[in-house]
Amino acid sequence: MSSSTLLSRRDLAFLLHDWLDVGRLTERPRYAEHSRETFDAVLDLAAQVAAERFATHNRAADATEPSFDGQRVRTIPQVKAALEVFAETGLLAATMDESVGGMQLPHAVAAACFAWFQAANVATAAYPFLTLGNANLLLAHGSAEQIDTWVRPMVEGRFFGTMCLSEPQAGSSLADITTRAEPQDDGTYRLVGTKMWISGGEHDLAENIVHLVLARIPGGPPGVKGISLFIVPKVLLDAGGALGPRNDVVLVGLNHKLGYRGTTNTLLNFGEGVHRPYGRPGAVGYLVGEPHQGLAQMFHMMNEARIGVGAGATALGYTGYLKSVAYARQRPQGRPVADKDPTAPQVPIVAHADVRRMLLAQKSYVEGALALILYCGRLLDEEKTAPAEADRSRAHLLLDLLTPIAKSWPSQWCLAANDLAIQVHGGYGYTRDYDVEQHWRDNRLNPIHEGTHGIQALDLLGRKVTMRGGAGLELLLETIRATVTRAWKAEGEAAELAGRLGAAVDRIAVVTRRLHGAGDPELALANASVYLEAVGHVVIAWMWLEQLLAVEALGDPDGPDADFLAGKRQAARYFFRYELPRTGPQFDLLESLDRTTLDTRDTWF
Amino acid sequence: MSSSTLLSRRDLAFLLHDWLDVGRLTERPRYAEHSRETFDAVLDLAAQVAAERFATHNRAADATEPSFDGQRVRTIPQVKAALEVFAETGLLAATMDESVGGMQLPHAVAAACFAWFQAANVATAAYPFLTLGNANLLLAHGSAEQIDTWVRPMVEGRFFGTMCLSEPQAGSSLADITTRAEPQDDGTYRLVGTKMWISGGEHDLAENIVHLVLARIPGGPPGVKGISLFIVPKVLLDAGGALGPRNDVVLVGLNHKLGYRGTTNTLLNFGEGVHRPYGRPGAVGYLVGEPHQGLAQMFHMMNEARIGVGAGATALGYTGYLKSVAYARQRPQGRPVADKDPTAPQVPIVAHADVRRMLLAQKSYVEGALALILYCGRLLDEEKTAPAEADRSRAHLLLDLLTPIAKSWPSQWCLAANDLAIQVHGGYGYTRDYDVEQHWRDNRLNPIHEGTHGIQALDLLGRKVTMRGGAGLELLLETIRATVTRAWKAEGEAAELAGRLGAAVDRIAVVTRRLHGAGDPELALANASVYLEAVGHVVIAWMWLEQLLAVEALGDPDGPDADFLAGKRQAARYFFRYELPRTGPQFDLLESLDRTTLDTRDTWF
Repeated sequence: MSSSTLLSRRDLAFLLHDWLDVGRLTERPRYAEHSRETFDAVLDLAAQVAAERFATHNRAADATEPSFDGQRVRTIPQVKAALEVFAETGLLAATMDESVGGMQLPHAVAAACFAWFQAANVATAAYPFLTLGNANLLLAHGSAEQIDTWVRPMVEGRFFGTMCLSEPQAGSSLADITTRAEPQDDGTYRLVGTKMWISGGEHDLAENIVHLVLARIPGGPPGVKGISLFIVPKVLLDAGGALGPRNDVVLVGLNHKLGYRGTTNTLLNFGEGVHRPYGRPGAVGYLVGEPHQGLAQMFHMMNEARIGVGAGATALGYTGYLKSVAYARQRPQGRPVADKDPTAPQVPIVAHADVRRMLLAQKSYVEGALALILYCGRLLDEEKTAPAEADRSRAHLLLDLLTPIAKSWPSQWCLAANDLAIQVHGGYGYTRDYDVEQHWRDNRLNPIHEGTHGIQALDLLGRKVTMRGGAGLELLLETIRATVTRAWKAEGEAAELAGRLGAAVDRIAVVTRRLHGAGDPELALANASVYLEAVGHVVIAWMWLEQLLAVEALGDPDGPDADFLAGKRQAARYFFRYELPRTGPQFDLLESLDRTTLDTRDTWF
Repeated sequence: MSSSTLLSRRDLAFLLHDWLDVGRLTERPRYAEHSRETFDAVLDLAAQVAAERFATHNRAADATEPSFDGQRVRTIPQVKAALEVFAETGLLAATMDESVGGMQLPHAVAAACFAWFQAANVATAAYPFLTLGNANLLLAHGSAEQIDTWVRPMVEGRFFGTMCLSEPQAGSSLADITTRAEPQDDGTYRLVGTKMWISGGEHDLAENIVHLVLARIPGGPPGVKGISLFIVPKVLLDAGGALGPRNDVVLVGLNHKLGYRGTTNTLLNFGEGVHRPYGRPGAVGYLVGEPHQGLAQMFHMMNEARIGVGAGATALGYTGYLKSVAYARQRPQGRPVADKDPTAPQVPIVAHADVRRMLLAQKSYVEGALALILYCGRLLDEEKTAPAEADRSRAHLLLDLLTPIAKSWPSQWCLAANDLAIQVHGGYGYTRDYDVEQHWRDNRLNPIHEGTHGIQALDLLGRKVTMRGGAGLELLLETIRATVTRAWKAEGEAAELAGRLGAAVDRIAVVTRRLHGAGDPELALANASVYLEAVGHVVIAWMWLEQLLAVEALGDPDGPDADFLAGKRQAARYFFRYELPRTGPQFDLLESLDRTTLDTRDTWF
């Protein structure tokens, strides 16, 4: 399978080099060993492995989902084979320090690498990406010994990781988790409880599974302030690090899903008593950091995971877009509006205005979303390596604000892109002979996991926008206005679009003040999702203006690049003409402090 | 299974009686044998059979889709059992004349009956509904003998019907079909060709399958003007009507779909030579009506089928809505915004503003769509039975104009409702343990079959709006304005909404003139889909204002009806506040005669 229907290598080069100028990062000590060439080489490697090892079993893993025979969970063999090759690439440690076996790649470059795997096979890619989130969390909060014991085998691909947050009665509301962790005399804990929606919670793909589990130490405060974080391995290790007895983590059942079927998703019991490690009840757990810091620690991971969800949604949207372009170019059907002669040959459907509309919409969504995801990666690089503390802190603040948008916007609009990709394929797109229906099903998870759309909306409007006295939002608006100013000076088309973006930014400022100025949190948040969606559209319009400026900076070359750059211009126009205006009625609604949802009684449905 | 999560019996009573006043139809000769009681009895019967026989195997038919073992197509036994009970109800002939065994029910009532089956199990319901479309077409265009031979056994449930239009190379473009029909000396024809996407094309559910096939008689004009319509049975009949030799209609393969899996969908070869009826090659076919009239005849059926698609989309949206209401009422999660005490009990998620937004959105979509579908049924009744010719002709014209909207709007927005139903269910909604993911998959077919969204858009803006010098559109706008005037006089909330609807109607008039006034068909149609969507939203806003007026006419009773009526008011408000304003930017775009899609080159993607 070719990588050319997964992502566009040319677009990645444009975004990373022509726009984000990641090459300049090699001036910084952390990336000094790198160059544009090493970046490109690792991108090529990712594209190749994704196409040859991941895309090749994407449909098979969907058609034959993992099954539990009472003894073990079985997955089709291609999954393990692909993950072994992935481990050999070393990409799991792409951004990690050399000291733990990492490549010290910039996050922007790593995100682009990972997107290839998500586009090729989001379900198989979930195993290493969950492991990566787990490992990064331990690198940030674990002890040196914990890092040595657990992170090293994860980096080597021998152990896989999970995140165990939700319980059957506590999903969005983590305050309500009840899993208990009883302290033992030897400093370890024994956990008892049930965890729901655990991706990668059981499988036969690795020697061991390292669960990171949120639980309560008895006597702690109620709610989220009394949650602690534990390492709970499936198999305990002996003093030398070799696999020892089975821990008391037991699979209760597999969840059978609409999509993402290749990723096992499980209900797990901890400390049910099936296994009694060292002769005692409870699942053995090791506290990470201090007690009652679990939620803050987990959020460290969760912010990365949320951008990762947005990246996955983007990748699925992107590959669906490329596949529908390929289909539209080769499928003959109908004739131009002006040509009524039925004996004239049919034209490829890409010639029809409505098909072009559907392709332009997809292009504007998926390339806009990819720009945002890579921009967030670039901010993470700034946060970690900018020479000046002020720059690091600004990057941190901006990334914090953008995170719910980077999670939600691609989840909503790249799903919409997949819907359009099906539509371009017509009846064929509705069959399992084409990939797009699976992309649509897979992508439907993204508005749900790692915090639903509604939770992201509350995070943005209820927390991020008000934090530090509104400094985060202020910074976002100021950053967008800087682009507007640059575009204004550039004149021509960019200047025209800049005027519209500037007006939208002003509306964000006014509407936000009005919502929070009313002094009624319930009213302020009543339409948080509408706010999230409107601000998201403005942010993507900003991404398109940024891209347009990068295109204009490149001038007007001939050849294939002329088509590529003209396509960028046209997608930017499309977004400003068809998409940005959607925010007008949304801002109107928000500005009116609409109470419709608050005034609705439950008995009216 | 209870019918209460399929459709709302109360809402149907409201729409049919309180609003459309179908009881008055019994004053007309055709419906003189009926009364409100007989209407209600048949609705109750439909609800019961749908709940007890159709809903009960909806998931099973999805999980075990029809399979072909080389000899026959196998379906799970519950499908045949359900269809036998359906045949016993006599509902297939609900609207037909008593002379052919029909009930002579009004179309509005019949549509409400059928919606129960579509909500319960759209895939199993497809078999009788395809048969019904086939039978109605023969009743309109077949000879007395053809009706006696083919329609009677269909009404009795012994034969099923199909519609064979598409071919692998000709879907949206019927001008390009190539199936040939060679005239024979005995007045019959022999057909040779391949038909794609034939639902119900092969199965073991009936004694015979009556295919209605579009084909070309050699020597006829090219394009759609040379298409004729043929009856091509799977099994030929002897002179006495008994099953005779196998006709040469052969299953090439089953299509494996994203949804609607319980309905076989087939690729069929006609006249391939596998069977040689009466020792000669070709599939035996009988011409319906005159040669070269096939498309016009088929459109007779297709218009009904298109409204039927909208009805199916509506029913799927409706049941998903009711299921998400039930889930939101019983699922505890989180606490009110104002209550930060983590030891307080969790509240049902219906208490959260964002969940109420998702339920209100669904309610406004599905009840708005159902109103439109029943209104179209009522128009069909007017067209067929209004005493004055002018009224019949008005109804015909208005229905013709509304058909692409009645097909597309529910297909788009009740699919969006299903998306929201999944979202309300959170992670659980993404599993196959709940119904909503299947409704979403099933509903995804509706923007594709019986003419895609883009085809409906061209039909509306390119044909319906311009037909008879614009009389159809004029009539629609005038009819909506009549509602606006009534609402204006009613004062209060209805008057306020009327002002907004009136403004939107004015925009339709202005924009339509501008689009067609430019004298460039390609430019006029460049954004036909945007036009379809905007006009659709205005039409549904109209349906909501109509419902609001019906609510106000009922006064303010106590008890459960007070909740029901308050819910109607709130959904009307929701639609006017959150939905109708979406049309502003759409009309702006159309008014600007935007050329973005036309100016895009194929090489830019």
